[in-house]
Amino acid sequence: MALRLDGKALAAQLERELEARVRAGLGQAGRPPGLAVIRVGHDPASAVYVANKERACGRVGIRSFATHQPADTDQQTLLKTIQQLNRNPAVDGILLQLPLPRGLDGRALLLAIDPDKDVDGLHPLNLGRLLRGEQGPRSCTPAGVMALLQRAGIALEGKRALVVGRSILVGQPMALMLQQANATVTVAHSCTVDLLARCREAELLVVAAGRPGLLGAEAISPGTVVVDVGIHRQPAQREGDRGRLCGDVRAGEVETLASHLTPVPGGVGPMTVVMLLVNTVRCWARSHALDPVLPELH
Amino acid sequence: MALRLDGKALAAQLERELEARVRAGLGQAGRPPGLAVIRVGHDPASAVYVANKERACGRVGIRSFATHQPADTDQQTLLKTIQQLNRNPAVDGILLQLPLPRGLDGRALLLAIDPDKDVDGLHPLNLGRLLRGEQGPRSCTPAGVMALLQRAGIALEGKRALVVGRSILVGQPMALMLQQANATVTVAHSCTVDLLARCREAELLVVAAGRPGLLGAEAISPGTVVVDVGIHRQPAQREGDRGRLCGDVRAGEVETLASHLTPVPGGVGPMTVVMLLVNTVRCWARSHALDPVLPELH
Repeated sequence: MALRLDGKALAAQLERELEARVRAGLGQAGRPPGLAVIRVGHDPASAVYVANKERACGRVGIRSFATHQPADTDQQTLLKTIQQLNRNPAVDGILLQLPLPRGLDGRALLLAIDPDKDVDGLHPLNLGRLLRGEQGPRSCTPAGVMALLQRAGIALEGKRALVVGRSILVGQPMALMLQQANATVTVAHSCTVDLLARCREAELLVVAAGRPGLLGAEAISPGTVVVDVGIHRQPAQREGDRGRLCGDVRAGEVETLASHLTPVPGGVGPMTVVMLLVNTVRCWARSHALDPVLPELH
Repeated sequence: MALRLDGKALAAQLERELEARVRAGLGQAGRPPGLAVIRVGHDPASAVYVANKERACGRVGIRSFATHQPADTDQQTLLKTIQQLNRNPAVDGILLQLPLPRGLDGRALLLAIDPDKDVDGLHPLNLGRLLRGEQGPRSCTPAGVMALLQRAGIALEGKRALVVGRSILVGQPMALMLQQANATVTVAHSCTVDLLARCREAELLVVAAGRPGLLGAEAISPGTVVVDVGIHRQPAQREGDRGRLCGDVRAGEVETLASHLTPVPGGVGPMTVVMLLVNTVRCWARSHALDPVLPELH
Protein backbone atom coordinates (compact mmCIF):
# COMPACT_ATOMS: atom_id res chain seq x y z
CA MET A 1 0.00 0.00 0.00
CA ALA A 2 1.16 3.50 -0.83
CA LEU A 3 2.28 5.66 2.05
CA ARG A 4 -0.16 8.49 2.49
CA LEU A 5 1.28 11.99 2.04
CA ASP A 6 -0.93 13.64 4.63
CA GLY A 7 -1.23 17.32 3.74
CA LYS A 8 -3.80 17.99 6.42
CA ALA A 9 -1.46 16.82 9.17
CA LEU A 10 1.57 18.61 7.73
CA ALA A 11 -0.37 21.85 7.26
CA ALA A 12 -1.44 21.70 10.93
CA GLN A 13 2.17 21.07 11.94
CA LEU A 14 3.43 24.00 9.84
CA GLU A 15 0.74 26.25 11.31
CA ARG A 16 2.08 25.44 14.78
CA GLU A 17 5.63 26.21 13.64
CA LEU A 18 4.48 29.49 12.09
CA GLU A 19 2.51 30.47 15.17
CA ALA A 20 5.62 29.99 17.31
CA ARG A 21 7.70 32.06 14.88
CA VAL A 22 5.16 34.87 14.85
CA ARG A 23 4.95 34.89 18.64
CA ALA A 24 8.75 34.90 18.97
CA GLY A 25 9.18 37.75 16.47
CA LEU A 26 6.41 40.06 17.69
CA GLY A 27 8.69 41.94 20.04
CA GLN A 28 11.31 42.80 17.44
CA ALA A 29 8.78 43.46 14.66
CA GLY A 30 6.42 45.50 16.80
CA ARG A 31 3.42 44.22 14.90
CA PRO A 32 2.00 40.92 13.65
CA PRO A 33 2.25 39.84 9.99
CA GLY A 34 -0.60 41.19 7.87
CA LEU A 35 -2.39 39.55 4.94
CA ALA A 36 -4.87 41.40 2.75
CA VAL A 37 -7.28 39.29 0.74
CA ILE A 38 -9.20 41.19 -1.92
CA ARG A 39 -12.47 39.57 -2.86
CA VAL A 40 -14.71 41.02 -5.55
CA GLY A 41 -18.29 39.91 -6.17
CA HIS A 42 -20.17 36.88 -4.94
CA ASP A 43 -18.54 33.72 -6.25
CA PRO A 44 -19.71 31.18 -3.65
CA ALA A 45 -16.57 29.03 -3.75
CA SER A 46 -14.44 32.14 -3.24
CA ALA A 47 -16.45 33.00 -0.14
CA VAL A 48 -15.55 29.62 1.35
CA TYR A 49 -11.87 29.88 0.36
CA VAL A 50 -11.50 33.38 1.75
CA ALA A 51 -13.19 32.41 5.02
CA ASN A 52 -10.78 29.43 5.30
CA LYS A 53 -7.77 31.66 4.71
CA GLU A 54 -8.93 34.15 7.33
CA ARG A 55 -9.47 31.42 9.91
CA ALA A 56 -6.01 30.00 9.16
CA CYS A 57 -4.50 33.48 9.58
CA GLY A 58 -6.21 33.74 12.95
CA ARG A 59 -4.70 30.45 14.17
CA VAL A 60 -1.18 31.55 13.24
CA GLY A 61 -1.40 35.12 14.51
CA ILE A 62 -1.53 36.86 11.12
CA ARG A 63 -3.77 39.92 11.03
CA SER A 64 -6.32 39.80 8.19
CA PHE A 65 -7.13 42.87 6.14
CA ALA A 66 -10.18 41.61 4.30
CA THR A 67 -11.61 43.72 1.50
CA HIS A 68 -14.87 42.59 0.01
CA GLN A 69 -15.97 44.74 -2.90
CA PRO A 70 -19.23 44.58 -4.87
CA ALA A 71 -19.33 42.75 -8.22
CA ASP A 72 -19.69 46.02 -10.15
CA THR A 73 -16.49 47.57 -8.73
CA ASP A 74 -14.52 49.14 -11.55
CA GLN A 75 -10.87 48.54 -12.46
CA GLN A 76 -9.75 51.96 -11.26
CA THR A 77 -11.21 51.46 -7.78
CA LEU A 78 -9.50 48.09 -7.47
CA LEU A 79 -6.20 49.52 -8.65
CA LYS A 80 -6.49 52.17 -5.93
CA THR A 81 -7.25 49.53 -3.31
CA ILE A 82 -4.14 47.62 -4.37
CA GLN A 83 -1.97 50.74 -4.33
CA GLN A 84 -3.15 51.59 -0.83
CA LEU A 85 -2.33 48.08 0.35
CA ASN A 86 1.09 48.30 -1.36
CA ARG A 87 1.81 51.41 0.73
CA ASN A 88 0.27 50.10 3.96
CA PRO A 89 3.21 49.18 6.22
CA ALA A 90 1.06 46.77 8.27
CA VAL A 91 0.35 44.62 5.20
CA ASP A 92 2.98 42.04 4.22
CA GLY A 93 0.96 40.08 1.72
CA ILE A 94 -1.74 40.90 -0.82
CA LEU A 95 -3.87 38.28 -2.48
CA LEU A 96 -6.41 38.90 -5.21
CA GLN A 97 -8.97 36.11 -4.94
CA LEU A 98 -9.84 34.63 -8.34
CA PRO A 99 -12.05 34.39 -10.31
CA LEU A 100 -12.91 38.06 -10.80
CA PRO A 101 -16.27 39.26 -12.17
CA ARG A 102 -16.32 39.73 -15.94
CA GLY A 103 -15.06 43.03 -17.28
CA LEU A 104 -12.14 43.29 -14.87
CA ASP A 105 -8.59 42.91 -16.19
CA GLY A 106 -7.06 40.47 -13.71
CA ARG A 107 -3.62 40.62 -15.30
CA ALA A 108 -3.36 44.40 -14.92
CA LEU A 109 -4.45 44.11 -11.28
CA LEU A 110 -1.91 41.37 -10.60
CA LEU A 111 0.82 43.52 -12.16
CA ALA A 112 -0.14 46.36 -9.82
CA ILE A 113 0.61 44.31 -6.69
CA ASP A 114 4.03 45.06 -5.18
CA PRO A 115 6.00 41.92 -6.17
CA ASP A 116 7.43 41.72 -2.66
CA LYS A 117 3.87 41.49 -1.27
CA ASP A 118 2.67 39.06 -3.97
CA VAL A 119 2.15 36.11 -1.60
CA ASP A 120 0.46 34.12 -4.37
CA GLY A 121 3.74 34.19 -6.31
CA LEU A 122 1.95 34.89 -9.59
CA HIS A 123 3.42 38.27 -10.53
CA PRO A 124 5.57 37.79 -13.65
CA LEU A 125 8.55 39.20 -11.75
CA ASN A 126 8.20 36.44 -9.15
CA LEU A 127 7.84 33.79 -11.82
CA GLY A 128 11.00 35.19 -13.42
CA ARG A 129 12.75 35.07 -10.04
CA LEU A 130 11.72 31.43 -9.72
CA LEU A 131 13.10 30.71 -13.19
CA ARG A 132 16.37 32.41 -12.26
CA GLY A 133 16.52 30.58 -8.93
CA GLU A 134 16.29 33.86 -7.02
CA GLN A 135 14.47 34.57 -3.77
CA GLY A 136 10.87 35.73 -3.92
CA PRO A 137 7.36 34.54 -2.97
CA ARG A 138 6.69 31.14 -4.54
CA SER A 139 3.40 29.99 -6.02
CA CYS A 140 1.52 28.29 -3.16
CA THR A 141 0.28 25.00 -4.61
CA PRO A 142 3.57 23.78 -6.08
CA ALA A 143 5.44 25.10 -3.04
CA GLY A 144 3.03 23.04 -0.92
CA VAL A 145 3.83 19.93 -2.96
CA MET A 146 7.55 20.54 -2.47
CA ALA A 147 7.02 20.87 1.28
CA LEU A 148 5.07 17.59 1.38
CA LEU A 149 7.81 15.76 -0.53
CA GLN A 150 10.55 17.28 1.56
CA ARG A 151 9.01 16.55 4.96
CA ALA A 152 8.31 12.98 3.80
CA GLY A 153 12.03 12.62 3.06
CA ILE A 154 11.53 11.83 -0.62
CA ALA A 155 14.82 12.41 -2.45
CA LEU A 156 14.36 14.25 -5.75
CA GLU A 157 17.88 14.54 -7.14
CA GLY A 158 18.18 12.66 -10.42
CA LYS A 159 14.58 11.36 -10.21
CA ARG A 160 12.53 11.30 -13.40
CA ALA A 161 9.56 13.51 -12.72
CA LEU A 162 6.54 14.06 -14.95
CA VAL A 163 4.26 17.04 -14.39
CA VAL A 164 0.93 16.56 -16.16
CA GLY A 165 -0.53 19.99 -16.90
CA ARG A 166 1.17 23.28 -17.72
CA SER A 167 -0.95 25.91 -16.04
CA ILE A 168 0.70 29.02 -14.72
CA LEU A 169 -0.84 28.34 -11.31
CA VAL A 170 0.57 24.84 -10.88
CA GLY A 171 2.22 22.94 -13.73
CA GLN A 172 4.81 25.47 -14.85
CA PRO A 173 6.10 26.59 -11.44
CA MET A 174 5.92 22.96 -10.23
CA ALA A 175 8.26 21.87 -13.03
CA LEU A 176 10.72 24.62 -12.17
CA MET A 177 10.72 23.80 -8.46
CA LEU A 178 11.32 20.11 -9.11
CA GLN A 179 14.09 20.99 -11.50
CA GLN A 180 15.73 23.23 -8.92
CA ALA A 181 15.67 20.22 -6.61
CA ASN A 182 17.70 18.47 -9.35
CA ALA A 183 15.00 16.18 -10.68
CA THR A 184 14.91 15.50 -14.42
CA VAL A 185 11.55 17.01 -15.27
CA THR A 186 9.20 16.53 -18.21
CA VAL A 187 6.02 18.55 -18.66
CA ALA A 188 3.11 16.77 -20.35
CA HIS A 189 -0.02 18.51 -21.64
CA SER A 190 -2.95 18.16 -24.00
CA CYS A 191 -0.67 17.82 -27.06
CA THR A 192 1.56 15.15 -25.53
CA VAL A 193 1.63 11.96 -27.60
CA ASP A 194 1.19 8.70 -25.65
CA LEU A 195 0.65 10.28 -22.24
CA LEU A 196 0.31 6.90 -20.52
CA ALA A 197 3.75 5.76 -21.67
CA ARG A 198 5.25 9.04 -20.43
CA CYS A 199 3.51 8.53 -17.07
CA ARG A 200 4.83 4.98 -16.71
CA GLU A 201 8.41 6.23 -17.23
CA ALA A 202 8.10 8.59 -14.27
CA GLU A 203 9.39 7.94 -10.77
CA LEU A 204 7.49 10.97 -9.52
CA LEU A 205 4.17 11.91 -11.07
CA VAL A 206 2.47 15.21 -10.32
CA VAL A 207 -0.98 15.33 -11.89
CA ALA A 208 -2.45 18.80 -12.30
CA ALA A 209 -4.58 18.35 -15.38
CA GLY A 210 -7.87 19.49 -13.90
CA ARG A 211 -9.67 16.40 -15.20
CA PRO A 212 -11.44 14.14 -12.70
CA GLY A 213 -10.08 10.58 -12.66
CA LEU A 214 -7.83 11.14 -15.69
CA LEU A 215 -5.19 8.61 -14.65
CA GLY A 216 -5.34 5.21 -12.96
CA ALA A 217 -3.43 1.94 -12.74
CA GLU A 218 -2.57 2.01 -16.45
CA ALA A 219 -0.42 5.10 -15.87
CA ILE A 220 1.60 4.07 -12.81
CA SER A 221 4.73 1.97 -12.57
CA PRO A 222 5.19 0.18 -9.26
CA GLY A 223 6.99 2.35 -6.72
CA THR A 224 6.04 5.71 -8.21
CA VAL A 225 5.44 8.72 -5.98
CA VAL A 226 2.03 10.09 -7.01
CA VAL A 227 0.92 13.64 -6.21
CA ASP A 228 -2.67 14.45 -7.14
CA VAL A 229 -3.32 18.19 -7.42
CA GLY A 230 -6.85 17.86 -8.80
CA ILE A 231 -9.93 18.38 -6.69
CA HIS A 232 -13.40 17.88 -8.11
CA ARG A 233 -16.83 17.26 -6.68
CA GLN A 234 -18.43 14.19 -8.24
CA PRO A 235 -22.10 14.33 -9.23
CA ALA A 236 -24.34 13.45 -6.30
CA GLN A 237 -25.52 9.82 -6.36
CA ARG A 238 -28.78 10.55 -4.55
CA GLU A 239 -30.92 13.59 -3.91
CA GLY A 240 -29.64 15.49 -0.92
CA ASP A 241 -26.09 14.15 -1.33
CA ARG A 242 -23.31 16.65 -2.00
CA GLY A 243 -21.25 14.23 -4.10
CA ARG A 244 -17.80 12.97 -3.07
CA LEU A 245 -14.56 14.81 -3.75
CA CYS A 246 -12.09 13.20 -6.11
CA GLY A 247 -8.80 14.08 -7.77
CA ASP A 248 -7.24 13.72 -11.22
CA VAL A 249 -6.05 10.26 -10.18
CA ARG A 250 -8.27 7.23 -9.56
CA ALA A 251 -6.83 6.66 -6.10
CA GLY A 252 -8.41 3.25 -5.55
CA GLU A 253 -6.52 1.76 -8.51
CA VAL A 254 -3.25 3.43 -7.69
CA GLU A 255 -2.76 2.91 -3.99
CA THR A 256 -1.46 -0.64 -4.32
CA LEU A 257 1.08 0.44 -6.96
CA ALA A 258 2.38 3.80 -5.81
CA SER A 259 5.04 4.13 -3.14
CA HIS A 260 3.45 7.36 -1.89
CA LEU A 261 0.12 9.01 -2.69
CA THR A 262 -1.55 12.29 -1.73
CA PRO A 263 -5.19 11.75 -0.72
CA VAL A 264 -8.01 13.91 -2.06
CA PRO A 265 -9.17 15.69 0.01
CA GLY A 266 -6.48 16.19 2.66
CA GLY A 267 -3.40 16.09 0.43
CA VAL A 268 -2.32 19.08 -1.64
CA GLY A 269 -5.32 21.29 -0.79
CA PRO A 270 -4.45 22.10 2.83
CA MET A 271 -0.82 22.67 1.81
CA THR A 272 -1.84 25.43 -0.61
CA VAL A 273 -3.45 27.42 2.20
CA VAL A 274 -0.60 26.95 4.64
CA MET A 275 1.99 28.01 2.05
CA LEU A 276 0.11 31.30 1.71
CA LEU A 277 0.68 31.78 5.44
CA VAL A 278 4.33 30.75 5.06
CA ASN A 279 4.81 33.34 2.29
CA THR A 280 3.16 36.03 4.42
CA VAL A 281 5.22 35.29 7.52
CA ARG A 282 8.36 35.16 5.35
CA CYS A 283 7.66 38.63 3.92
CA TRP A 284 7.06 39.93 7.44
CA ALA A 285 10.25 38.34 8.78
CA ARG A 286 12.31 39.74 5.91
CA SER A 287 11.06 43.28 6.36
CA HIS A 288 11.93 43.13 10.06
CA ALA A 289 15.32 41.44 9.65
CA LEU A 290 14.18 38.33 11.53
CA ASP A 291 15.69 34.91 10.86
CA PRO A 292 14.46 33.21 7.65
CA VAL A 293 11.20 31.31 8.11
CA LEU A 294 11.25 27.58 7.25
CA PRO A 295 14.23 28.10 4.92
CA GLU A 296 14.49 24.37 4.25
CA LEU A 297 11.14 24.48 2.42
CA HIS A 298 12.50 26.71 -0.39
CA MET B 1 22.84 12.66 -44.33
CA ALA B 2 21.30 15.18 -41.96
CA LEU B 3 19.84 18.31 -43.51
CA ARG B 4 21.92 21.27 -42.47
CA LEU B 5 20.09 23.94 -40.47
CA ASP B 6 22.01 26.85 -41.91
CA GLY B 7 21.89 29.68 -39.38
CA LYS B 8 24.28 31.85 -41.35
CA ALA B 9 22.01 31.85 -44.39
CA LEU B 10 18.84 32.37 -42.36
CA ALA B 11 20.41 35.21 -40.37
CA ALA B 12 21.36 36.92 -43.62
CA GLN B 13 17.81 36.44 -44.91
CA LEU B 14 16.30 37.85 -41.71
CA GLU B 15 18.65 40.83 -41.87
CA ARG B 16 17.30 41.61 -45.34
CA GLU B 17 13.73 41.34 -44.06
CA LEU B 18 14.53 43.60 -41.12
CA GLU B 19 16.29 46.14 -43.31
CA ALA B 20 13.19 46.39 -45.51
CA ARG B 21 10.96 46.80 -42.44
CA VAL B 22 13.16 49.54 -41.01
CA ARG B 23 13.24 51.38 -44.34
CA ALA B 24 9.46 51.11 -44.73
CA GLY B 25 8.78 52.35 -41.18
CA LEU B 26 11.22 55.26 -41.09
CA GLY B 27 8.65 57.78 -42.32
CA GLN B 28 6.05 56.97 -39.69
CA ALA B 29 8.58 56.51 -36.88
CA GLY B 30 10.59 59.59 -37.73
CA ARG B 31 13.81 57.91 -36.56
CA PRO B 32 15.64 54.61 -36.99
CA PRO B 33 15.63 51.90 -34.30
CA GLY B 34 18.38 52.38 -31.72
CA LEU B 35 20.43 49.76 -29.87
CA ALA B 36 22.75 50.63 -26.99
CA VAL B 37 25.45 48.12 -26.16
CA ILE B 38 27.22 48.72 -22.86
CA ARG B 39 30.68 47.25 -22.71
CA VAL B 40 32.83 47.50 -19.60
CA GLY B 41 36.52 46.67 -19.48
CA HIS B 42 38.70 44.83 -21.95
CA ASP B 43 37.50 41.26 -22.34
CA PRO B 44 38.88 40.42 -25.81
CA ALA B 45 36.00 38.12 -26.82
CA SER B 46 33.51 40.84 -25.85
CA ALA B 47 35.31 43.30 -28.12
CA VAL B 48 34.75 40.95 -31.07
CA TYR B 49 31.11 40.26 -30.17
CA VAL B 50 30.29 43.94 -29.74
CA ALA B 51 31.96 44.85 -33.05
CA ASN B 52 29.92 42.09 -34.77
CA LYS B 53 26.70 43.41 -33.28
CA GLU B 54 27.47 46.95 -34.36
CA ARG B 55 28.24 45.87 -37.91
CA ALA B 56 24.99 43.88 -38.03
CA CYS B 57 23.08 46.93 -36.78
CA GLY B 58 24.63 48.96 -39.57
CA ARG B 59 23.48 46.48 -42.24
CA VAL B 60 19.88 46.60 -40.99
CA GLY B 61 19.65 50.34 -40.40
CA ILE B 62 19.70 50.26 -36.60
CA ARG B 63 21.55 53.16 -35.00
CA SER B 64 24.21 52.01 -32.49
CA PHE B 65 24.73 53.80 -29.21
CA ALA B 66 27.95 52.18 -28.11
CA THR B 67 29.22 52.86 -24.61
CA HIS B 68 32.62 51.53 -23.74
CA GLN B 69 33.55 52.16 -20.12
CA PRO B 70 36.86 51.45 -18.37
CA ALA B 71 37.30 48.28 -16.31
CA ASP B 72 37.33 50.24 -13.04
CA THR B 73 33.94 51.91 -13.64
CA ASP B 74 31.88 51.71 -10.45
CA GLN B 75 28.38 50.33 -10.04
CA GLN B 76 26.84 53.77 -9.51
CA THR B 77 28.23 55.16 -12.76
CA LEU B 78 26.91 52.17 -14.70
CA LEU B 79 23.51 52.47 -13.07
CA LYS B 80 23.40 56.10 -14.19
CA THR B 81 24.37 55.13 -17.73
CA ILE B 82 21.53 52.60 -17.79
CA GLN B 83 19.02 55.08 -16.39
CA GLN B 84 19.99 57.63 -19.04
CA LEU B 85 19.53 55.03 -21.78
CA ASN B 86 16.17 54.03 -20.26
CA ARG B 87 15.03 57.64 -20.64
CA ASN B 88 16.60 58.21 -24.06
CA PRO B 89 13.72 58.15 -26.58
CA ALA B 90 16.07 57.27 -29.46
CA VAL B 91 17.12 54.01 -27.76
CA ASP B 92 14.83 50.99 -28.21
CA GLY B 93 17.13 48.32 -26.87
CA ILE B 94 19.80 48.15 -24.16
CA LEU B 95 22.28 45.31 -23.89
CA LEU B 96 24.80 44.85 -21.13
CA GLN B 97 27.67 42.86 -22.62
CA LEU B 98 28.81 40.05 -20.32
CA PRO B 99 31.10 39.15 -18.64
CA LEU B 100 31.53 42.21 -16.43
CA PRO B 101 34.76 42.99 -14.57
CA ARG B 102 34.90 41.63 -11.03
CA GLY B 103 33.30 43.73 -8.31
CA LEU B 104 30.29 44.76 -10.39
CA ASP B 105 26.84 43.40 -9.51
CA GLY B 106 25.53 42.26 -12.88
CA ARG B 107 22.17 41.24 -11.51
CA ALA B 108 21.45 44.69 -10.07
CA LEU B 109 22.46 46.29 -13.37
CA LEU B 110 20.23 43.93 -15.34
CA LEU B 111 17.32 44.75 -13.03
CA ALA B 112 17.88 48.46 -13.70
CA ILE B 113 17.26 48.04 -17.45
CA ASP B 114 13.74 49.04 -18.52
CA PRO B 115 12.17 45.61 -19.19
CA ASP B 116 10.66 46.94 -22.41
CA LYS B 117 14.18 47.80 -23.64
CA ASP B 118 15.74 44.53 -22.39
CA VAL B 119 16.53 43.14 -25.86
CA ASP B 120 18.53 40.29 -24.32
CA GLY B 121 15.31 39.04 -22.68
CA LEU B 122 17.12 38.32 -19.41
CA HIS B 123 15.29 40.66 -17.02
CA PRO B 124 13.30 38.51 -14.57
CA LEU B 125 10.12 40.29 -15.65
CA ASN B 126 10.70 39.16 -19.23
CA LEU B 127 11.46 35.61 -18.12
CA GLY B 128 8.21 35.71 -16.16
CA ARG B 129 6.38 37.00 -19.23
CA LEU B 130 7.81 34.10 -21.22
CA LEU B 131 6.64 31.67 -18.54
CA ARG B 132 3.16 33.22 -18.65
CA GLY B 133 3.13 33.18 -22.46
CA GLU B 134 2.92 36.97 -22.57
CA GLN B 135 4.54 39.35 -25.04
CA GLY B 136 7.99 40.71 -24.26
CA PRO B 137 11.57 40.51 -25.55
CA ARG B 138 12.70 36.89 -25.76
CA SER B 139 16.13 35.56 -24.91
CA CYS B 140 18.11 35.66 -28.19
CA THR B 141 19.77 32.25 -28.43
CA PRO B 142 16.68 30.10 -27.82
CA ALA B 143 14.58 32.48 -29.92
CA GLY B 144 17.14 31.97 -32.69
CA VAL B 145 16.79 28.19 -32.38
CA MET B 146 13.00 28.53 -32.62
CA ALA B 147 13.37 30.64 -35.76
CA LEU B 148 15.69 28.07 -37.35
CA LEU B 149 13.24 25.23 -36.62
CA GLN B 150 10.27 27.24 -37.82
CA ARG B 151 11.78 28.39 -41.10
CA ALA B 152 12.93 24.80 -41.76
CA GLY B 153 9.31 23.70 -41.41
CA ILE B 154 10.01 21.34 -38.51
CA ALA B 155 6.74 20.59 -36.71
CA LEU B 156 7.09 20.67 -32.93
CA GLU B 157 3.61 19.86 -31.68
CA GLY B 158 3.63 16.63 -29.69
CA LYS B 159 7.35 16.03 -30.38
CA ARG B 160 9.50 14.69 -27.55
CA ALA B 161 12.17 17.29 -27.00
CA LEU B 162 15.16 17.06 -24.70
CA VAL B 163 17.06 20.19 -23.71
CA VAL B 164 20.48 19.34 -22.28
CA GLY B 165 21.53 22.15 -19.96
CA ARG B 166 19.48 24.43 -17.73
CA SER B 167 21.23 27.78 -17.89
CA ILE B 168 19.17 30.92 -17.64
CA LEU B 169 20.69 32.12 -20.92
CA VAL B 170 19.69 29.11 -23.00
CA GLY B 171 18.35 25.91 -21.44
CA GLN B 172 15.53 27.29 -19.32
CA PRO B 173 14.01 29.71 -21.84
CA MET B 174 14.58 27.14 -24.61
CA ALA B 175 12.47 24.59 -22.73
CA LEU B 176 9.67 27.11 -22.25
CA MET B 177 9.65 28.15 -25.90
CA LEU B 178 9.52 24.55 -27.11
CA GLN B 179 6.74 23.86 -24.65
CA GLN B 180 4.76 26.84 -25.91
CA ALA B 181 5.10 25.32 -29.37
CA ASN B 182 3.38 22.26 -27.85
CA ALA B 183 6.38 19.94 -27.70
CA THR B 184 6.67 17.59 -24.71
CA VAL B 185 9.85 18.91 -23.15
CA THR B 186 12.33 17.36 -20.72
CA VAL B 187 15.26 19.29 -19.27
CA ALA B 188 18.40 17.29 -18.55
CA HIS B 189 21.33 18.55 -16.49
CA SER B 190 24.36 17.48 -14.51
CA CYS B 191 22.23 15.46 -12.04
CA THR B 192 20.30 13.58 -14.71
CA VAL B 193 20.66 9.82 -14.40
CA ASP B 194 21.44 7.95 -17.66
CA LEU B 195 21.66 11.01 -19.89
CA LEU B 196 22.36 8.91 -22.99
CA ALA B 197 19.11 6.96 -22.63
CA ARG B 198 17.20 10.23 -22.21
CA CYS B 199 18.88 11.58 -25.36
CA ARG B 200 17.99 8.51 -27.39
CA GLU B 201 14.31 8.93 -26.45
CA ALA B 202 14.23 12.43 -27.93
CA GLU B 203 12.92 13.35 -31.36
CA LEU B 204 14.42 16.82 -30.96
CA LEU B 205 17.65 17.30 -29.05
CA VAL B 206 18.92 20.74 -28.09
CA VAL B 207 22.38 20.52 -26.56
CA ALA B 208 23.43 23.53 -24.52
CA ALA B 209 25.69 21.92 -21.96
CA GLY B 210 28.77 24.00 -22.64
CA ARG B 211 30.96 20.90 -22.89
CA PRO B 212 32.91 20.31 -26.13
CA GLY B 213 31.98 17.07 -27.88
CA LEU B 214 29.79 15.86 -25.01
CA LEU B 215 27.43 13.82 -27.19
CA GLY B 216 27.93 11.70 -30.29
CA ALA B 217 26.42 8.72 -32.11
CA GLU B 218 25.66 6.93 -28.83
CA ALA B 219 23.14 9.64 -27.93
CA ILE B 220 21.18 9.94 -31.16
CA SER B 221 18.32 7.85 -32.46
CA PRO B 222 17.95 7.81 -36.26
CA GLY B 223 15.82 10.69 -37.52
CA THR B 224 16.43 13.03 -34.57
CA VAL B 225 16.60 16.78 -35.09
CA VAL B 226 19.85 17.90 -33.43
CA VAL B 227 20.51 21.51 -32.42
CA ASP B 228 24.00 22.20 -31.11
CA VAL B 229 24.22 25.40 -29.08
CA GLY B 230 27.82 24.87 -27.92
CA ILE B 231 30.74 26.69 -29.45
CA HIS B 232 34.28 26.02 -28.32
CA ARG B 233 37.72 26.52 -29.78
CA GLN B 234 39.71 23.30 -29.82
CA PRO B 235 43.36 23.36 -28.81
CA ALA B 236 45.60 24.22 -31.76
CA GLN B 237 47.20 21.19 -33.41
CA ARG B 238 50.27 23.06 -34.58
CA GLU B 239 52.04 26.24 -33.64
CA GLY B 240 50.45 29.19 -35.40
CA ASP B 241 47.09 27.44 -35.76
CA ARG B 242 44.08 28.97 -34.03
CA GLY B 243 42.36 25.62 -33.39
CA ARG B 244 39.06 24.61 -34.98
CA LEU B 245 35.65 25.52 -33.60
CA CYS B 246 33.46 22.70 -32.34
CA GLY B 247 30.16 22.29 -30.55
CA ASP B 248 28.76 20.16 -27.73
CA VAL B 249 27.95 17.49 -30.31
CA ARG B 250 30.48 15.40 -32.25
CA ALA B 251 29.03 16.37 -35.60
CA GLY B 252 30.98 13.85 -37.66
CA GLU B 253 29.36 10.94 -35.80
CA VAL B 254 25.89 12.38 -35.82
CA GLU B 255 25.35 13.63 -39.34
CA THR B 256 24.51 10.23 -40.77
CA LEU B 257 21.94 9.61 -38.02
CA ALA B 258 20.21 12.94 -37.47
CA SER B 259 17.45 14.18 -39.76
CA HIS B 260 18.60 17.78 -39.26
CA LEU B 261 21.74 19.23 -37.69
CA THR B 262 22.98 22.74 -36.94
CA PRO B 263 26.62 23.17 -37.97
CA VAL B 264 29.22 24.77 -35.69
CA PRO B 265 30.09 27.42 -36.64
CA GLY B 266 27.28 28.80 -38.81
CA GLY B 267 24.31 27.29 -36.98
CA VAL B 268 22.95 28.80 -33.78
CA GLY B 269 25.64 31.48 -33.41
CA PRO B 270 24.56 33.81 -36.23
CA MET B 271 20.92 33.38 -35.16
CA THR B 272 21.70 34.77 -31.69
CA VAL B 273 22.97 38.02 -33.18
CA VAL B 274 20.13 38.44 -35.62
CA MET B 275 17.51 37.83 -32.91
CA LEU B 276 19.00 40.76 -31.01
CA LEU B 277 18.26 42.87 -34.07
CA VAL B 278 14.76 41.38 -34.33
CA ASN B 279 14.09 42.27 -30.68
CA THR B 280 15.34 45.82 -31.23
CA VAL B 281 13.28 46.40 -34.37
CA ARG B 282 10.24 44.91 -32.60
CA CYS B 283 10.59 47.33 -29.67
CA TRP B 284 10.92 50.21 -32.14
CA ALA B 285 7.89 49.10 -34.17
CA ARG B 286 5.79 48.70 -31.02
CA SER B 287 6.61 52.15 -29.71
CA HIS B 288 5.62 53.68 -33.08
CA ALA B 289 2.48 51.63 -33.61
CA LEU B 290 3.92 49.93 -36.71
CA ASP B 291 2.82 46.44 -37.77
CA PRO B 292 4.33 43.59 -35.72
CA VAL B 293 7.79 42.51 -36.93
CA LEU B 294 8.18 38.85 -37.94
CA PRO B 295 5.22 37.83 -35.76
CA GLU B 296 5.43 34.23 -36.97
CA LEU B 297 8.76 33.87 -35.16
CA HIS B 298 7.04 34.37 -31.75
